[in-house]
This record gives sequence, structure tokens and C-alpha cells, in this order.
Amino acid sequence: MSAETSPEGAGHQRAFPASRRVYVSGSLHPDLRVPLREIALSPTRHADGRETANEPVRVYDTSGPWGDPEFHGDPTRGLPTLRRPWILARADTGEGEGAAGRGGGAEGAMRPRRVLRASAGHPVTQRWYARQGVVTPEMEYAAIRENQGLEAEEGRWSEALARNDLAYQHHGSQERSDGTQPAIFARFPQQRIPRRITAEFVRQEIAAGRAILPANVNHPEVEPMVIGRSFLVKINANIGNSALASGIAEEVEKMRWATFWGADTVMDLSTGPDLAVTREWILRNSPVPVGTVPIYEALERAGGDPEALTWEGFREVLIEQCEQGVDYFTLHAGVRLRFIPLTVHRAAGIVSRGGSILAQWCLAHHQENLLHTHWEEICAILAAYDVAVSIGDGLRPGCLADANDAAQFAELEEQGKLTRLAWEHGVQVMCEGPGHVPLHRIEENMHRQLAWCHEAPFYTLGPITTDIAPGYDHFTSAIGAAMIGWLGTAMLCYVTPKEHLGLPDREDVKEGVLVYKIAAHAADLAKGHPGAQYRDNALSRARAEFRWEDQFHLALDPERARAFHDQTLPQATAKAAHFCSMCGPRFCAMKITEEVRRYAAGKGVAAEEAIEVGLREKAREFSAE
Amino acid sequence: MSAETSPEGAGHQRAFPASRRVYVSGSLHPDLRVPLREIALSPTRHADGRETANEPVRVYDTSGPWGDPEFHGDPTRGLPTLRRPWILARADTGEGEGAAGRGGGAEGAMRPRRVLRASAGHPVTQRWYARQGVVTPEMEYAAIRENQGLEAEEGRWSEALARNDLAYQHHGSQERSDGTQPAIFARFPQQRIPRRITAEFVRQEIAAGRAILPANVNHPEVEPMVIGRSFLVKINANIGNSALASGIAEEVEKMRWATFWGADTVMDLSTGPDLAVTREWILRNSPVPVGTVPIYEALERAGGDPEALTWEGFREVLIEQCEQGVDYFTLHAGVRLRFIPLTVHRAAGIVSRGGSILAQWCLAHHQENLLHTHWEEICAILAAYDVAVSIGDGLRPGCLADANDAAQFAELEEQGKLTRLAWEHGVQVMCEGPGHVPLHRIEENMHRQLAWCHEAPFYTLGPITTDIAPGYDHFTSAIGAAMIGWLGTAMLCYVTPKEHLGLPDREDVKEGVLVYKIAAHAADLAKGHPGAQYRDNALSRARAEFRWEDQFHLALDPERARAFHDQTLPQATAKAAHFCSMCGPRFCAMKITEEVRRYAAGKGVAAEEAIEVGLREKAREFSAE
Repeated sequence: MSAETSPEGAGHQRAFPASRRVYVSGSLHPDLRVPLREIALSPTRHADGRETANEPVRVYDTSGPWGDPEFHGDPTRGLPTLRRPWILARADTGEGEGAAGRGGGAEGAMRPRRVLRASAGHPVTQRWYARQGVVTPEMEYAAIRENQGLEAEEGRWSEALARNDLAYQHHGSQERSDGTQPAIFARFPQQRIPRRITAEFVRQEIAAGRAILPANVNHPEVEPMVIGRSFLVKINANIGNSALASGIAEEVEKMRWATFWGADTVMDLSTGPDLAVTREWILRNSPVPVGTVPIYEALERAGGDPEALTWEGFREVLIEQCEQGVDYFTLHAGVRLRFIPLTVHRAAGIVSRGGSILAQWCLAHHQENLLHTHWEEICAILAAYDVAVSIGDGLRPGCLADANDAAQFAELEEQGKLTRLAWEHGVQVMCEGPGHVPLHRIEENMHRQLAWCHEAPFYTLGPITTDIAPGYDHFTSAIGAAMIGWLGTAMLCYVTPKEHLGLPDREDVKEGVLVYKIAAHAADLAKGHPGAQYRDNALSRARAEFRWEDQFHLALDPERARAFHDQTLPQATAKAAHFCSMCGPRFCAMKITEEVRRYAAGKGVAAEEAIEVGLREKAREFSAE
Repeated sequence: MSAETSPEGAGHQRAFPASRRVYVSGSLHPDLRVPLREIALSPTRHADGRETANEPVRVYDTSGPWGDPEFHGDPTRGLPTLRRPWILARADTGEGEGAAGRGGGAEGAMRPRRVLRASAGHPVTQRWYARQGVVTPEMEYAAIRENQGLEAEEGRWSEALARNDLAYQHHGSQERSDGTQPAIFARFPQQRIPRRITAEFVRQEIAAGRAILPANVNHPEVEPMVIGRSFLVKINANIGNSALASGIAEEVEKMRWATFWGADTVMDLSTGPDLAVTREWILRNSPVPVGTVPIYEALERAGGDPEALTWEGFREVLIEQCEQGVDYFTLHAGVRLRFIPLTVHRAAGIVSRGGSILAQWCLAHHQENLLHTHWEEICAILAAYDVAVSIGDGLRPGCLADANDAAQFAELEEQGKLTRLAWEHGVQVMCEGPGHVPLHRIEENMHRQLAWCHEAPFYTLGPITTDIAPGYDHFTSAIGAAMIGWLGTAMLCYVTPKEHLGLPDREDVKEGVLVYKIAAHAADLAKGHPGAQYRDNALSRARAEFRWEDQFHLALDPERARAFHDQTLPQATAKAAHFCSMCGPRFCAMKITEEVRRYAAGKGVAAEEAIEVGLREKAREFSAE
């Protein structure tokens, strides 16, 4: 397959307008080159004809080398192995042929390579390093990304402040105490997020178990990122073929497409044939961590019969995926035999694939879940590759009626116990959450998860807040996702418009990612993540100054913003017009505002008068009520 | 214009699948015929071949006579005058030629008619009747709608309960006391929403000022509905042409389209020429209350120059629109001269059209806002027609940076004072709110509005929760709308995907309405509105039983749900398949759940065991923590 001629190859390489790739280097690890996208802005034109330059805006970039126009890659060869020297420098892993030769290896491996595993008698996990006090290159890399370039140039913040409050930001929920913030923050405050996120802060959070940095030693292509509630809220995009549709090249392209739009991790949920080959292609081309649900492949090998699953078969799959480079596994070890009857009278029963497979196995053998009974053995395997575990919620509610019920919470409490055990083995842990939950019962989910799972990162699917809108479940769920992200969920698993109805295509993947970027960002703003509001302010300023092009360029989806403007005012001149298409030139509020300002300035009606009115103070009284 | 041949006429009449129009009659007013849409469901097929019938589901219907297949109307003739006998029976209005002859009348009136106004020396508002202890037909009509047909047949609730908890509903925020509910409910509880909403309850809420029933005596076509935080959350769709685009027939069709999908009111925000004619067409064809912003027409008549506005000119517009039948006016009377300087250093200044027009007038004349100085005169006019006032928020924030600032809250406090004055004149009042607000500062808005505006209904635009996604602002705002609706906002003004970019077309209107129906419904569920969860449960049950057709029919957008399913599994047989397209037959969680249930039943692993585990009790401990 040639990248130039294939429909899913480099021919699909794409770029954001007015953007360039920039790199920030590390200080502890000066050779780091952390990618950001820099959006150039046009100058502000003043009424008197003067112009003032506007600083470019830097944003977090998940597209990896594919987003660098200097990079001329080819999906058949995969990405450069960024992390390999860091891993080898630690001198605690050994090479071997690897079991990958058995599974994906034979027909699946894209290039000859030797697999790595721990060889020094200790885990090779970021958790282990963190607890030894070691700040790895991965940690500094992730820290730099969190700052979104705002720390890169010393003067940027202060200059931005001087330039009409571009850096103005509302205090987040943590800093406010006006009686209108959720109660959860009183019991579970976020760790004080420093103005500048340092590598040492990342280390502390990982050591405490409040954050994870998923990065298998056999996935050297990954650009490190951190998942935890003191950091930017992350989003995951599910890809993967099923028996009914979709092919390998299509899945690789979906991964590239999802990360172009901002997916922080992808999960390969393939269930059809060629599982290992599909995964190999995705891993070698993915700049973001890749998660899987190993029980799917185990079931495939067991001939599709859940009752035929064995520990030996599952273990083989687990090791092969560890060797191939998967960064985190969803393991439904909390689905215990005795919880299953709690689901019998549910409206929607068990809706998790993994959960239902294991439930069937448990009942058929009348034995405890084999993942539960072999938990410590599993953890020992994961620790040797640094595969993080995402403890699945196999009994999550599949409709509002089942939300927050006994089955769900029984499993959540079990997830907490499994978390502690995994930590003892040095494994990085996050916990998965629902699902379908009405708005007013979301905080309860977050509260229990933090209490029972010892503040391990929470990773939720939505939650969906109403069941009556199939075809719009990206929305029904992103409402819940924004709220639970604000309250402390570290990563949100996207939902596409096709949820409950069919398999997502390219447009669905894009729509799901964008809607979840919105939810995650709304949560970051509410949490008060440092610098989160900077891009909002820059876009709003561009809007107020009728810098239409800048408004498009700063948008999450520049193409759509421009296309919508074109639909009403297609003329090129309209992009320079000091009015917008909604009201026309005569009624434009923003145009009148410009006049109000000029008028006020002329008449001497100025800020002094505002202060005299004393309303700022009055407004503050509220907090003392 | 003939309805049969015009593209925007009856040819566009449309219908929901598997639905029929049903009518519920009143008890105080037995002649009432309150429309509902009834969705027929297919039977449940059990494993042993038996079938159990499923009760149809009734839903609130805003489409008016246009939604009744028996009605063969024609937009050129308008709708039947449903309320006329009720109004005349009250014998407190007199007829006259009306000023409408001057404005819209001359070329605009669709049919000869005489306008009504108060003639008995007292207001003719629903507020006035409510305070006299009178339960009007309008109040009973609105009450019946709120029950969504669940009270219509005495046995429905109990039967639903028996049939596998279809009527199961989570307790709303009001009833829960587990330490995870918003603080606002402690200070501002909703009035205890009765299990069945009675006409008397509607009367009480209107009398107390906590709800309004917008219904101009000159809009007899309107089907009464109630707006208040003890009722279902309502949504408004803005329509209206501007100088740059859109025509009259198109606006009428937009209104019919918006109400087909569920808009509870529409606002005609036209600013171009032919204002009065456009409005006449919309009013005569609208089954829902119509709102306007009269300052737009006043400005049009003042030659587009805000400084040339006069009280006399504005008063003339006001009376003409009262006579034409507008049900509520947005009046930006809270934009006071002394607040304007508070906006000068904002990032986005004044973004409300009405607000900016009045701000410019105030500054130009260095006088207090003419709507503020003439407030009591305005109220006296409105009371004579029962036009409700929606006190505008002309200084609402236009970006996150300006949220909850001194200008916004100064005006909000002023809205409270104006509310009291309007109430003294018998006028029904709601207050408008923002705008752009980050998630964690939304509760503060709701809290202040209830405190300062004496619990008058809040009517908000969004709020938008991030500024970085132009093209997706229906969604950035629906997140905020769901939250503020939950906290007590009575009506949500929709935002379309074109917000900030262009004028919405048909698809944008539909998208905006649907996304806002989702937000409103998510809020109703969280508030615990009686019966709100019924439709969710019915759809979830259909999903769990693989009744695909029922799932589509119960969806807010049946066409899209079916189309998405068709994209992956177009075969007709797939609609009867006991698996779905996401996982295929082998991995289907719901299919495995069926097997788990059968297995559990066979092995005697039943609910008793669940109770023995005692987890339900354990789950409840949480609330006592």
C-alpha cells in the first residue's frame, strides 16, 4: 500500500488554517520536543487607523507527527519511536522474541522488532518511578503539554494581561466560596493546581495514584500525556471494526482522524477477525495511548463461546497485547458472581459487552469471575510492561432507570479494592464509570468513586442524561460528561451520534470528538485549569473586533465556522465587515457597542463613573450572604 | 398563495410515525380539547412465544392544529380562534377598530377583525384572574398538558407500575437529601410539584408570580401553556428575517417547523422591512405564544437611528403589536444610563441588540432609558391586552470573560424592581438571563435571579459554556441550558448551530429545537417532574427487548434514529433482529443479558440472593454519611 495512492494514507493528511507546528523543549530533559499548534492572528485595527499586533495562540496538539508538515510519514512504516532512547536509558527492561510472534506477530507485525519487558526485578511503570522520586522524560513531556505553551515565553502572560485581559480567567470552583459550588469540592478538593504545571507536580500526582501516564514500553511511538483530575480533562475516542463492518485501513484512518480533531487516547474495540493485525497497524501509527478490552480477543479465540473462556487463554492474549504495545486494558474484574443477580430486575440488564461475557461465564461455571480470582497475577504481568489498568464497569446502568443502583455501586466499591491491589503491584490504575445517569445523580457517582476508589482517576462514558434521543446521544451524554468532568472525572469516553443505532463513520467520529472536546473544555474552565480561558478570550476578542478570520482560525472546527458564515454572507468582503449576518449592518449590537465606546470616551463617561456607582462591590456582597 | 402549490404550505405538513392525535377534555371546563400525541407500541414477545401488549405513550404536543391529520388548514386563512369564546365569556374586553389598521393592518392584516382590549376597568391578564381566585379555561388547558396524558386514564399509572416499573422514576433534587444536590434548592425549593398538576395549582403559581401563561386576548389561536419552574421546562425558538435574508412565507414555515419539533413559544425577531406583515402571518398561524422585541420595529420607523427614537414612536409600536396579538414583549427597561459605563472595559461590550440600541439612545441624550422612565405607562398598556413582559437583559455577557460582572448583575437587580412594578399593574412577568457563563458560575445566576426578581420565571439564552466552538453553539449552550433548567430556569431560548455566524435555515432550526428539547428534558428529569421519566423508561424497555421500531417511534427524532440504523443494517429483517449493529450477533451484550436472565432463572439465582447480599442497604448508607 502506498501512502500517496491509498485513500487512507498521507493523501488524507490535513492541516488547520493559519497554524504552524512549534516545539517546546524541556528543562530537566532538554532534548524533549513537545509539540503545540500555534495559531497566527491578524492585527487589531483601531478607529484611528493604527494597528496592534496580536500574539499567536498556542493550543494542545494530539495529532502527533502526522500534524507536522515537515513529517513525511507513511502508515505502512509507522511513526518514529520517540520514547525508545528514554526507555533504554533506564536500563531496566530486557529484549526478547516475545509472544507477539505467536499472535499478531506471525502475519501481523509491521516490522521486525524485539519486545521489551521488565528485567531488573521491579515494575517499569511510571507509578514505580514516581514513587522512587524519579521524574521521567515522559512526566516532563506531559507537564509541558498541560501548560499549553503559556509558560514557554516568560513574558507572554504578563503581556497578555496588559493587552486587555486576554489572560483574565474566572476563579474555578476550588477558589470560589460563594455557596454556589458543588459540595463535592469540600470533601475532595482538587490538588492545588499550580499556575505552571511542573514535571515534579506530575510526578507527585502519579505517585499518589491520582493520575496515570499510560505508556507501554512497547509503544515507543506514544507522545506522553497525563490523566488525572488536577490536569486538563482528556477524551477518548473508540474505534474498531466489528464482525459486520469496517476494515483495517479504515480503522487506522479513523485513529488519525480522531487525533487530528483532538482525541487524547483511542480504544481499539475491534471484535471481528484480524484483531491482532488491526491493532498492530493502529499501535505503530498512533501518537496517543491505545486502550483495548482483551476479553474480546480471548472470546474470539474461544470460538465465541463465553463459557469456553479459560484463564490460560486469557493470559496468553494479555501477554501478547502487552508485548504488542497496548497502553491500557479495560478489565472487568469487578463483575463478581454475587453481584449478577442484582441486575436481573433491571430495566436494561447488563449492557457492557465485557460485563455480559464475564457474567455469563460466572453463571455457567458458578465460579467467581476469572479476572477477579487472577487479579494479582494480571497485575504482575501489567507491571512488567507498564500497561495501565482501566477497571471496567461491567454492570454500568444501560438506561436512566438503572442508574446508581445496587449492582452498579457494588461493582464500584469492588473497583476500589482492586485499585489498591493493583497499586501494590506498581500498576497505574483508573476506574471506569457510567453510562446513563440523570443530571442530579451525577455528583453522587463522582463522590462515591473518589471515596471508594481512593481518588484513582475516573474515566466515564458520558453519562447520558436522557434516553429519549437516539441519534443525538453524543449530546445527551456530553451534557453529563461536562458536568462529571467539572466534578473531577479525568477522562471522558466519547459517544457518537450513532450510539445505540449503528457503527460510527468518519463524520460521526469527528462529531463525537468535537462535542467531547467542548464538554472537556467546559469542565476545564469550571475547574479553573490555568490558562483554560485564554483561547476563549482570544476568540471573543476577535469576535468583538470583527476579526472574522481569526474567529474561524481559533475555533475548534475552523472549516465549519467558515462554511456557516459563507452560507449567509459568501462574499469575501464580508469577512472584513464590521457587522455580522445575523442582524445586518443597521442592527448590529457589536457595531453599536463600538459606537457606545467611542461616544462614552468622547463624553468622558468612563470607568471612573463605574467605580463611583460602586456596583462591583455590591456584586461581591452576594458571596457574604 | 395556495397552500397546495406553495412550497411552504400544507404540502409540508408532516407527521410522526405510529402516532395519532388524541384529545383530553377538562373537568372544570369540560369543553376543553387538549391535544396530545399518542405513540403506539408493538407487543413484547416472550421467549415462550407469548405476547404482551404495551400501552401507547402520550407526549406533549406543541404542533397545534397543524399536527392533527383531521385539520385541513391553509396558512393564508390562519388557525381557528380557539380561545375567542373563553375571552368573550369573561365580558371584560371591548372591541374596536384598533390601531392595527395603521401599521400592519393596512397591507398586513390577513382577515378583517376587530381588536380586543380591557373594558371593565381592570386588567384582563391571567395574573389578575388568578389573584381573583378564578381558574380560567386557559389554566386548566395548561394544567392538562403538563400531565402529558398520564392522568387521563385512572389506571395507567398503576398498570405501568405493575408492568416492570415503566413508571419508576428517580426522586428529583427536591426529594433527595444525600449531600450531593445543589445548594440552591435549600434556599429556593420548587413548590411541591403535585403528582397530578391541577388547574388550581397552575392558578396558585400564576397568582404568586412564579409562573406566567402568555396569551394575548388578540391571539385567540394560541393553545395555552404555562411557564414556571414548577412545570415542565419550556423552550423558545427564535425566527425572523433580517435585512439580509429570509422572507415572510419562509418565516411562517419556520414557525410551523419549530413547533412540529417541539418549540413551546417562538419569538419573531424580524428586523427587515415588512415587519408587521411577517408578524401578522406568524400570529394567525401560530398555536404557540409569540414574543417580539418591539424596539426593533420602533427603530425601523425611526429610520434606523437609535438617537431618533421617541417615547411616542415606541408607544405606537407597542399598542399596534398588542392589538395584533403578540403574547410577550422583550423590553430592555433595565439598561439604565448609569450601568452603561460598566460595560466599557468588557471584552465583548454589549451584545444584545435591544440593549445596545437603548444604550446608544441613553448616551446620546444623556437621559435615563425611555423604557425605564415610562415603565408604568407601558405596564398599563400591556395589562389591557394581557401581553406578558419578558424583562430583557440588555447587558448580558457576550463572552465568558464578561460573565457575572457588575454590569450584568446591576441590570438583574433592576429587573427585580421592574418586576414588582409590573406585578402591581397586573402584568405577567418573566426575566431574561444570559448569555455566556462558565459552568461553575451558572448557579450563582439562578440564585441571584430568584432572590432579586422575587421568583418570577427566569428565561435564559443558553448559557453558552465555552467560546471556542462557533458552529457548535447550539451544543456549547445546551450544556448550560440543561444545568440552569435543572436549577430553576423556566424557559430556555434555543441557540442554533449558526449562532455568531449566520442566519439559521430549516435544518438549523430543527437542530436547535431538538438539542434544546434534550436539555429541557434532562432538566425535567433532574427536577423530578412527575412522569418525566416515563418516556425514557418506555424507550429503554423497547431497546432492551429489541423492539427497534418502538425505539425509533419513541425517539425525539424518529427519522434520524431509523436512518442511522439503516446506514449500518439496511435490511428490513434487522429491525426485528435480537442484536444490534454495534457488536454483531456474537458479542451483543443485550443478547447475552437475555441469556443471563434465563440462566439465572433456571439455576434459581434470583432476587432473594441479591437481597441476602444486602447491597441495596449498603448503597443507601451513603446518604447518611
